[in-house]
Amino acid sequence: MTEKKAKWIWKYGEYEIYHHKLLMCRRQEMGCDYPGVIWRIAPNEVSVRFAAKMHALTDTTLRIVTHSKGMAYFGDRKYPVNEDLFFPAGDYEVFVMLYDLEGFPSCFIDSEYLKTDESWVDMSFDLPDAPVACEPAFYSPDDNPAVFPFSYEEVTPVSVTETDGGLLYDFGKELFGPVTITEYPENEGVRLTYGESKEEALDYPEALIWENLRPGFDPVRPGRAFRYIHTQSDSGCPVKLCASYEYLPVEDIASFHCEDETINKIWDVCSYTFHLNSREVYLDGIKRDRWCWSGDAYQSFWANYYLYFDPQIVKRTILGLLGKPPYYTHINTINDYSAYLVAAVWDYYYATGDAVFVKRIWDNLKSLYAFMTSRTNEKGYVVKRDGDWIFIDWSEMDKEGILCAEQILLWNAHQVMGRLAELMGEDSSVYGASAAQLKENIMEDFWEEERGLFYDDKADGSRQITRHPNIFAIMYDFVPEEKVKRIAESVIYSDRYVQITTPYFKLYELIAMCKLGDFEKVQDYIRFYWGGMLEQGATTVWERYDPEATKEEALAMYGMKYGTSLCHAWGSGPIYLLGRYCCGVAATDVGYRTFEVRPDFGRFQEIRATVPVKDGVVKVHLENGRLEVMATVPGGTLVYGGKRYKLSANERVMVEAS
Amino acid sequence: MTEKKAKWIWKYGEYEIYHHKLLMCRRQEMGCDYPGVIWRIAPNEVSVRFAAKMHALTDTTLRIVTHSKGMAYFGDRKYPVNEDLFFPAGDYEVFVMLYDLEGFPSCFIDSEYLKTDESWVDMSFDLPDAPVACEPAFYSPDDNPAVFPFSYEEVTPVSVTETDGGLLYDFGKELFGPVTITEYPENEGVRLTYGESKEEALDYPEALIWENLRPGFDPVRPGRAFRYIHTQSDSGCPVKLCASYEYLPVEDIASFHCEDETINKIWDVCSYTFHLNSREVYLDGIKRDRWCWSGDAYQSFWANYYLYFDPQIVKRTILGLLGKPPYYTHINTINDYSAYLVAAVWDYYYATGDAVFVKRIWDNLKSLYAFMTSRTNEKGYVVKRDGDWIFIDWSEMDKEGILCAEQILLWNAHQVMGRLAELMGEDSSVYGASAAQLKENIMEDFWEEERGLFYDDKADGSRQITRHPNIFAIMYDFVPEEKVKRIAESVIYSDRYVQITTPYFKLYELIAMCKLGDFEKVQDYIRFYWGGMLEQGATTVWERYDPEATKEEALAMYGMKYGTSLCHAWGSGPIYLLGRYCCGVAATDVGYRTFEVRPDFGRFQEIRATVPVKDGVVKVHLENGRLEVMATVPGGTLVYGGKRYKLSANERVMVEAS
Repeated sequence: MTEKKAKWIWKYGEYEIYHHKLLMCRRQEMGCDYPGVIWRIAPNEVSVRFAAKMHALTDTTLRIVTHSKGMAYFGDRKYPVNEDLFFPAGDYEVFVMLYDLEGFPSCFIDSEYLKTDESWVDMSFDLPDAPVACEPAFYSPDDNPAVFPFSYEEVTPVSVTETDGGLLYDFGKELFGPVTITEYPENEGVRLTYGESKEEALDYPEALIWENLRPGFDPVRPGRAFRYIHTQSDSGCPVKLCASYEYLPVEDIASFHCEDETINKIWDVCSYTFHLNSREVYLDGIKRDRWCWSGDAYQSFWANYYLYFDPQIVKRTILGLLGKPPYYTHINTINDYSAYLVAAVWDYYYATGDAVFVKRIWDNLKSLYAFMTSRTNEKGYVVKRDGDWIFIDWSEMDKEGILCAEQILLWNAHQVMGRLAELMGEDSSVYGASAAQLKENIMEDFWEEERGLFYDDKADGSRQITRHPNIFAIMYDFVPEEKVKRIAESVIYSDRYVQITTPYFKLYELIAMCKLGDFEKVQDYIRFYWGGMLEQGATTVWERYDPEATKEEALAMYGMKYGTSLCHAWGSGPIYLLGRYCCGVAATDVGYRTFEVRPDFGRFQEIRATVPVKDGVVKVHLENGRLEVMATVPGGTLVYGGKRYKLSANERVMVEAS
Repeated sequence: MTEKKAKWIWKYGEYEIYHHKLLMCRRQEMGCDYPGVIWRIAPNEVSVRFAAKMHALTDTTLRIVTHSKGMAYFGDRKYPVNEDLFFPAGDYEVFVMLYDLEGFPSCFIDSEYLKTDESWVDMSFDLPDAPVACEPAFYSPDDNPAVFPFSYEEVTPVSVTETDGGLLYDFGKELFGPVTITEYPENEGVRLTYGESKEEALDYPEALIWENLRPGFDPVRPGRAFRYIHTQSDSGCPVKLCASYEYLPVEDIASFHCEDETINKIWDVCSYTFHLNSREVYLDGIKRDRWCWSGDAYQSFWANYYLYFDPQIVKRTILGLLGKPPYYTHINTINDYSAYLVAAVWDYYYATGDAVFVKRIWDNLKSLYAFMTSRTNEKGYVVKRDGDWIFIDWSEMDKEGILCAEQILLWNAHQVMGRLAELMGEDSSVYGASAAQLKENIMEDFWEEERGLFYDDKADGSRQITRHPNIFAIMYDFVPEEKVKRIAESVIYSDRYVQITTPYFKLYELIAMCKLGDFEKVQDYIRFYWGGMLEQGATTVWERYDPEATKEEALAMYGMKYGTSLCHAWGSGPIYLLGRYCCGVAATDVGYRTFEVRPDFGRFQEIRATVPVKDGVVKVHLENGRLEVMATVPGGTLVYGGKRYKLSANERVMVEAS
C-alpha cells in the first residue's frame, strides 16, 4: 500500500477538454479577446462521482483536497471536502461527489489507507464504470490540474533600442511566453506591441497583437508570440520588461545531421518551430490562429512520431478536437478535417499500440463517423451540406462540385473505422462494405483511364483536374502500383496542372514523391523552400512562403497587414520526411512490433540520424560509402540495395552504401 | 427604432441550463455541499456568435456590455467589449463573439442605432440560424443574467428564545431565504442549525442543514429552508440574525373559497407550499432534495396551470430536465420520468399553444425519445436496462419484471410524440404505429379480462396486481368506458390490493376517481389527508403523511432523523383537483381556444372560485342553490346537469344547482 503514489484524479477526458477549451478562448488580436466561436467548443462536465474502497487497519485521518466543491460518503455518512477527517479502523465504501462550475471536478487524497490514483472508479452519470484519469504532473496537494504544467525559462533580449517613442526589445528569435513589465510610470497608460517581425512591433495598431494597459494593470502579461516587443507609456517614460519562454517539456528523441548545413539548419528551425506549437494541444501557429485545427494537427502527429514520440500531446489534441457529441458540424466545420481526425486515431494506434485510448474515445468517434456518413449523398459521396466547409487546400479550385479528394479521405475513414471496430471487437463488415462500394464508385466516376488521373466534378457538372485527389491516391495507397506510375507521370510530375502552393498540402505531395522513390526531388524542394525562408532571416518556419513575394506581401494575410503567421506547425514537415523517407523508418505492425528501415538518401552522402520508434530509436549512419543501422529494440528489418537485413536489438548492421 | 427596448441576449436555453445547473449543485446537507451527481447535469456552452445589422444614420457611439469575454466585428474590423466605441454613420454587419468559462455568454447593447433584443440572430456553431433569447428581467446595463431575479421580503421571527446554549428563532412558518448574521462575537466560530421543525433546529448534528462558520465568515448566508434557526457561538455569546423570504414573483390567478374552512386552509397551505417550491425550476422540496425531478415537476406543471398559469417556470423546468444530448441515462435516471417529461411537453403546448417552444426543444426531445425506444425489448416494452431506475412509486412491488404502468406511460409518450411531430410538420406515422402496436401487446399480455384489470409481470414470470397500471389506464384514457368501469370496481374501489401511500401517486389515483365522477370521495380524502397534516401544525404540505405515525417517525426518512421534507411540491395536488375537477375547468382545444367548465361539486354547497385559462379566468360561484359561471375569454362551454351552455366572454351564465 505504502509504495503507491497518490495522484490527482478526474473524469477521463475532462483535463484535455478543459485545457483545449481555455486554449480555444485564449487567442487575442488587436487588443480584443478572440474566442473560437466558429465551431462548438466542448464544455466540461459539471459533476462527478468517484468510488473506492478503504481498508483502514488502524484509526486514520485524511483530507479530500480539491479545488472543486462537494462531499464524500464513507459508508452512509457524509463528510466535507478540504477538512481533516477522522475514521476509526474498518472497511469503508467511499464515494466522492464533486462539482465544479469553473474548472473541472478533481480531487486528491494522500493518506495511509486511501490514496487517489488510477484504481479509483468513475461512476458519474450511471454510465458504465470507468477508471478515473490522472497525469503524472499532478501528485501533490498543492497542485491544481486546472493549471497546465508548462516549463519556463527566462530569455534575454539581444537588443533594446529607443525608437518610435518607446523601447524596442528584440529577443533574437521567435518566442512564446509571458512578459512581466518591470519598470513603468505609475498612473499612466502603457502599450505593448508584439511583433513576429520588427515591422509589426513598430506598427501599432496594425500589428496583430498589442495591448493598451490602463493604470492599475497586472504587470504580468499572458503568454503571447513575439520576437520583438515595443513598449511605450503615455508620457514617453521608458517601460521595461523581462520575458520567459513558456514551453512543453518534451525532449527531442530524433536528430538529423548531414553534410548539407542548410538542411541541418532547416531541421533545427523545424524542430524549434514544432516545439513552439506543441502546447496543451497542437496549435496551427502561435500568433495566429492559436487554435487547434484537425488538418494541421494530422501533420503535427507525424512530426511528433518522428521528432519526440510523445503520445500525450497526441491524445490531448485528439480529445480536444473530438470534443463531445452530438456533432452538429464537422471537426473545425471542415469535412476533410473530420476524416483526418479518424485517420489520426489509426495512426496513433498503429504507432503506439495504445488500444486503451481507442476504447476511451470509441463511442465519440463512432458518433463523429455517423455524422460524417449521415451527410453523404446517395452514392456515398461527401457533398457540401449546410454548414460544411469543403477545404482540401487554399488552391483555387471549384469546391462546389464533388471533389474526388474528399472521397478518398472518406474511403480511408471507412477503412480505418473498420480496423478500429475489429480492434474493439465489433463487427467491421459495414465499414468494409462502405469502403469497397465507395472505391468502386470513385473509380467509375472520377478515374479517367485514358489520361491516367483522377478528376473532380465542378458545380456545373463539368470536370476539373487538380493535383489533390491524385496525391491522395498515392499517399493513401488507393490505387495499385501500375496506376500510381500513370498518376505520377500524368499529374505529379506534369506542369499542366496548377501547382500546390501551401506548405500544408505540399507535404502530401512530397510524401507522394517519396513513395514514388524520388527523394532527390523532395530533398531539392526542402532546400529550395525551407532554405529560402532561412535566407530571408526566418527563425521559425512561416505559414507560407513565396520566393517572389516582397516582405510586405509575405507578412500580410487575410486582409491584415501582419496576418501571416511566422511560426506555423505545418512547416515542420521536413522532420517527418527526413525520418520517414530519407532514413526510411516505419512501423510495419502495430506499435512497432515490427518495423522497416528502408532508406532513400537521395543525394546525401553523409547522414548521422536518430529516429524514434516505440520504446526505442533507430540510428542511421551513412559515411564514406558505408551505411550503419542500429535499433535499440527488436523487430526491425533494414531494406537496402534490394536486400533485407534483420536488425537485432542494439546490434549494428553495416552495409556498403549503394 | 427608438421605441425598441434593449435587452440582454444569450443563446436560447443557456439561461435555463445555467440556473438549473447551479440549483442542482446548491443542495447542502450536514455542512457539506451535496451536488447532483447521480445523473448528468448539462453544462453550458462555452462560446457564441450573435449577428445583427446596424444602420447608423449619423455618427454613433455604443458599448457592448458583457460579463463574458470576447469581441465584435463591425464590418471587417474588430472591436473590444466593455469599451465605448465610435462608428461613423453607415451600414454595418455586426458579429458579437463571446465566451464565458463561468457563466454563460450574454451581452447588452443599448444605443441609438443598435440594441440587443430578440431580433438578433444566434449563429453559433454553424447550426441553423436561430433567434437569440431574452428575459424581461434583464434590460439594463447593470443587470447580470447569471443572477436569478428572485424577490425578497424581510421576515420577522415570531419568537426568539434562549435555549440549548444559544438562541432559537421561530419564524412562525416554513420559509426559504438567505439569513444575515447581524450580531456575533468576533474571532469565534458560529453555528447555525436550521430546522423545518423545532426538534430539528435543536438537534445538531442530526439536523439536515447546519453550518459551522469559522471566524472571517461571510455573515450573509445562502438561501435555505427553515422555520426555526438555532444560533450559537463558541463562547456562548449571542448570535443574532435577520432573514428574508426569497421567492419567485408570480401572482396567484386562482382562488378557492368554500363553506369548509379546512378546505380553504388546505388551499392556502397548498398554494404557499407550491410558491416555496417554485424557483428557477420546480423543486421537489425546499430542504430535501432541493433537486429538480421530472415526476414531481409533472405534477407541479398541473398545479401551475390551475394556480398562477406561468409558462416561464414550466419552460425553465423542461429545459433544465431535458438538458442536452447525448442521453446516457433516463431523465433523473428514471424510466418513467423520461415518459413524464415527454407528456409534460404536450401538456404545456396544449395549455399555452406555444409551438415556438416545442420547435426549440424538438431535436433534443427526439433524441430523448430515441434513447427511450432504443432500450425497449423486442415487444417494445420498457424493461430494466443497465443504469435504469424503474420507479413508478415507492410502493412495495416487484420492479424487476415488466411493469404494465411503464408500458402505458410509454404508450402515452408514443402518442404525444406523434402529435408533436404533426405540429412540427413531420411524419408522425412511426409514432402512431408504435403506439398502436404497443397497445395491442399490452392488452394481450397484461389485461385480464376475467377480473377486469391490468397486472404486471414479476421477475420470475408470475403476476402481481398493483393499483398503478389500473390508475394510469383511466388517467391516460387508455381503455374505453366499459373497461374503465370494470377497473374501478375491481381495483380502484377494492381493498384487495395494496393501497397507494405516497401523496405523489395518490394524486394520480384521485384524478382517476375524479374521472370516474366520484369527486365526493376525493373531497373526503383531501379533508382527511391534508386536513390531518394541518391538525398536526403543518404550515406547508409534507412529503409524506401517515396519520398513525409518531412525530419521530414523521420526521425521519432515508435513515436520517430529519430526512422528511416538510415542504414538498407534490403536496399541492388539491389545487389541481379543485380547479380541474371540482370546478371542472379544462381546455378542449390547444391554448384554450375552446374549453369546458364541467363542475363536480361533490358535497360542496358554497364555492367562490377563480380558475385560470389562457389569457383569462373562469369564475365559478355556487351559492344558495344557484351556480354562476363567467369566463373572461371566449370559447367556453358550461356542462352542468346534463346540459351545455355557451360561455360568451365576460357574460355570466346562471343555472340552478343540481
